[in-house]
Amino acid sequence: MTPSHRTVPLDMGPDQFRTLGHELVDRIAAHLATLPGRPVTLGDSPTLIRDRLGQGPLAASGGDPAEILDQVTRLLVEHSLFNGHPRFWGYITSSPAPLGILGDLLAAAMNPNVGAFVLSPVATEIERQAVRWVAELIGYPAACGGIMVSGGNMANMVGFLAARRAKAPWDVRQAGLRAGSGQLLAYVSRETHTWIQKAADLFGLGLDAVRWIDVDDRLRMRVDALEAAIAADRAAGHLPFLVVGTAGSVSTGAIDPLGDIADTCRRHDLWFHVDGAYGAPAAALPEASPDLKALALADSVAVDPHKWLYAPLEAGCTLVRDARHLEDAFSFHPAYYHFTDGGDGQAPTNFHELGLQNSRGFRALKVWLGLRQAGRDGYVRMIRDDIALAEEMYRAAQAHPELEAFTLGLSIATFRFVPEGLALTGSAREEYLNSLNADLVTRLQAGGEVFVSNAVINGSYVLRACIVNFRTGAADVEALPDIVVRTGRALMGERPNG
Amino acid sequence: MTPSHRTVPLDMGPDQFRTLGHELVDRIAAHLATLPGRPVTLGDSPTLIRDRLGQGPLAASGGDPAEILDQVTRLLVEHSLFNGHPRFWGYITSSPAPLGILGDLLAAAMNPNVGAFVLSPVATEIERQAVRWVAELIGYPAACGGIMVSGGNMANMVGFLAARRAKAPWDVRQAGLRAGSGQLLAYVSRETHTWIQKAADLFGLGLDAVRWIDVDDRLRMRVDALEAAIAADRAAGHLPFLVVGTAGSVSTGAIDPLGDIADTCRRHDLWFHVDGAYGAPAAALPEASPDLKALALADSVAVDPHKWLYAPLEAGCTLVRDARHLEDAFSFHPAYYHFTDGGDGQAPTNFHELGLQNSRGFRALKVWLGLRQAGRDGYVRMIRDDIALAEEMYRAAQAHPELEAFTLGLSIATFRFVPEGLALTGSAREEYLNSLNADLVTRLQAGGEVFVSNAVINGSYVLRACIVNFRTGAADVEALPDIVVRTGRALMGERPNG
Repeated sequence: MTPSHRTVPLDMGPDQFRTLGHELVDRIAAHLATLPGRPVTLGDSPTLIRDRLGQGPLAASGGDPAEILDQVTRLLVEHSLFNGHPRFWGYITSSPAPLGILGDLLAAAMNPNVGAFVLSPVATEIERQAVRWVAELIGYPAACGGIMVSGGNMANMVGFLAARRAKAPWDVRQAGLRAGSGQLLAYVSRETHTWIQKAADLFGLGLDAVRWIDVDDRLRMRVDALEAAIAADRAAGHLPFLVVGTAGSVSTGAIDPLGDIADTCRRHDLWFHVDGAYGAPAAALPEASPDLKALALADSVAVDPHKWLYAPLEAGCTLVRDARHLEDAFSFHPAYYHFTDGGDGQAPTNFHELGLQNSRGFRALKVWLGLRQAGRDGYVRMIRDDIALAEEMYRAAQAHPELEAFTLGLSIATFRFVPEGLALTGSAREEYLNSLNADLVTRLQAGGEVFVSNAVINGSYVLRACIVNFRTGAADVEALPDIVVRTGRALMGERPNG
Repeated sequence: MTPSHRTVPLDMGPDQFRTLGHELVDRIAAHLATLPGRPVTLGDSPTLIRDRLGQGPLAASGGDPAEILDQVTRLLVEHSLFNGHPRFWGYITSSPAPLGILGDLLAAAMNPNVGAFVLSPVATEIERQAVRWVAELIGYPAACGGIMVSGGNMANMVGFLAARRAKAPWDVRQAGLRAGSGQLLAYVSRETHTWIQKAADLFGLGLDAVRWIDVDDRLRMRVDALEAAIAADRAAGHLPFLVVGTAGSVSTGAIDPLGDIADTCRRHDLWFHVDGAYGAPAAALPEASPDLKALALADSVAVDPHKWLYAPLEAGCTLVRDARHLEDAFSFHPAYYHFTDGGDGQAPTNFHELGLQNSRGFRALKVWLGLRQAGRDGYVRMIRDDIALAEEMYRAAQAHPELEAFTLGLSIATFRFVPEGLALTGSAREEYLNSLNADLVTRLQAGGEVFVSNAVINGSYVLRACIVNFRTGAADVEALPDIVVRTGRALMGERPNG
């Protein structure tokens, strides 16, 4: 009954793999070469995409891989949004580095399971090295521990969980949160990314366990307010365990006073986590602010190579000052694992013990390749240029009679469209401008000339451009004000109150 | 100050991308073609790999991408463990499908952020379709919700969190676990994968919240013991919320009586989650057992395309009977997100609201490509052949005078080496055999002829082969007994007590 010759509808001979692979590489090369002349996105609707894709059930029989790959490549090239476009500045997703793209090909082909050394000897060591190099790049102690994860949420969550384990004054892993003598509390600025809500919720503390600390006029955490909140909570019998400093807020690139927060954490024996998912790589710049460089004092740092290290998705990274904290928080030894030391007495790294995953892919490769290709100096130059371009954008908004510049932080500029001759005043004016600029974001995103996202700053709805894009040049930035104003005016002409 | 011409050390012209891409495709094709004749692994030590890799700090200046890619490709091809090898049967990692490998290349090149429709129109719809097709393949209601995740741990954790949200009788997201009137409890068989420990620990319930239900002589959950445990816990004031049925245990491929468990869950208003990370795809077989097919009754199912759908790492998937449960458990709407409907009034799917991640990669593509290439019938054939080969392996162990067959479940066979003329009896014999077979696993893994892992069954340390490998043929399976026995005998000759 055993098949001597299997039917292997998923296999492919080397010749066909070569042919399809070369063709795909050629199409990607052509795509990258022609991308600047095409729209960032067509802004297509779900209906249109669903029609193009077809909505049939899973077919009983398979198809020709060449045809399938051709169809899906065409669909993706014609109807995607391209964060590799020089004028993509939305949210925080970078242009993917071409060598990183090839890195993902190589990773998938070798398919190491980077959960255990024995399953992935080379990949495990490359991940260890990539983690250390990321630490060195941002000025974090190179003797740290760390792990690559899927992105910013997970990178911050790993830090959160390490903190909980290290600071909860009972065996939280065994007994759970109900066994504690009080409620664990985390302190974050009001500008913190939504990962902290997901973490507090999912890890069982609840949203009520997040203490939102006020910010100053530069949208940075007020350390006096932090100190007061900790004192009040301690007096009430609660259990503060974690302070999160943000190094590059998602809305405006604000950097909390990390050095002062570190002092507070030391005095109160709290875990100091830095969310540097976006901004940590900027600490590599010699001219980086002392506030940013103070991320070196954190107990843990989240940094996303798929943001400002220009790796393709997905690549996040958690660094932990004391490597043991990851093992303390995550390690289990099931009976069905048999992981030995490789015979040299050197303890191997089994990454499944250092994070949430067991089976793990080789996302470290694209990060490692980028660090090798560009080196420290290359990253410093690219990040510095992104920042300079955002500054230019901010200045251009300041100079334009129909734009109002709001904030500039790292490589994020925020501004809004304020049409000439607007007669409204007070809250009616603000409401009108908020509605107008929200519509403007929608229109700009769908239009495909540029892609910006938004922020809400002290109640004002503003346009937000974040440049983590080595393909953006001065001409792209210079074109933005006119595109915004032209689109805004066209929009006013169509609005009932325009 | 703004650079008119940026320095872009990470960029690469289309010609260089083509050249490097073609070269890499060729090397992968050659690697796949020659793999069966090479060792599964060299079993190298961390020291050796670290020496090969070099241990220097991050370089200040970058390097030539061609050279870097060449070096790392050589290192990976020469020193990896290859789960794509016909004789890799360790843990549960499949041979990666060649088209899936190209899928990861295309995904990285297009780089959609599948957190929101507007950022990934085509990719979002392909993920929706892939999720639905996975459900159709395994006989789960196609109207379900679902999401692709990194692997089995995360796929199960998403189900766990959906269950907690749905069944906790208070607002657990807002108020946390301490606010509840009792301790939430999860019921699992003793054979459940370690993900349940990670989930109970990390999500704040604590390991004490896991009720380990005894198994029958086929290592399946005893539903009478489950019923008794639920009743006792309810009487004690606890809050049962979740029962996990395993569809293919990691050690032996055991399938819990899912239909009976579903009945129990319905009667007691508990969430029924099926961990089908490994075994769920086998439900596609017409001849699958009713117990397995009863996964269709679950509230949520975890299934790993990077296991028995032969996708490259990483690809896990959670299915949820009622799609709203994912949004209920995970959705947040931060002010800096501006996601519209694409203009057609059709609500777009924004996957960041359905799971732990915000930014998300396009892991769905490789899964979708596999389903298109092989179709339902192709998967049925491949899975059926894997099972037939495991049966053949089990029979060969039964027939061999120096092997003792233990279990056969799905495509997992377990057995151990029992040397002829072994004089020991009772517990001394068991201890000796356990130690011998543990050493044997180490020796086999390092030897590179075959790769098996281990299980511990009722105290016995056994060898374990799991075939989720479309490259394995009858000859590979037939070769195993002699390799095991030859290696076992060699080992005995070297052991002090041999």
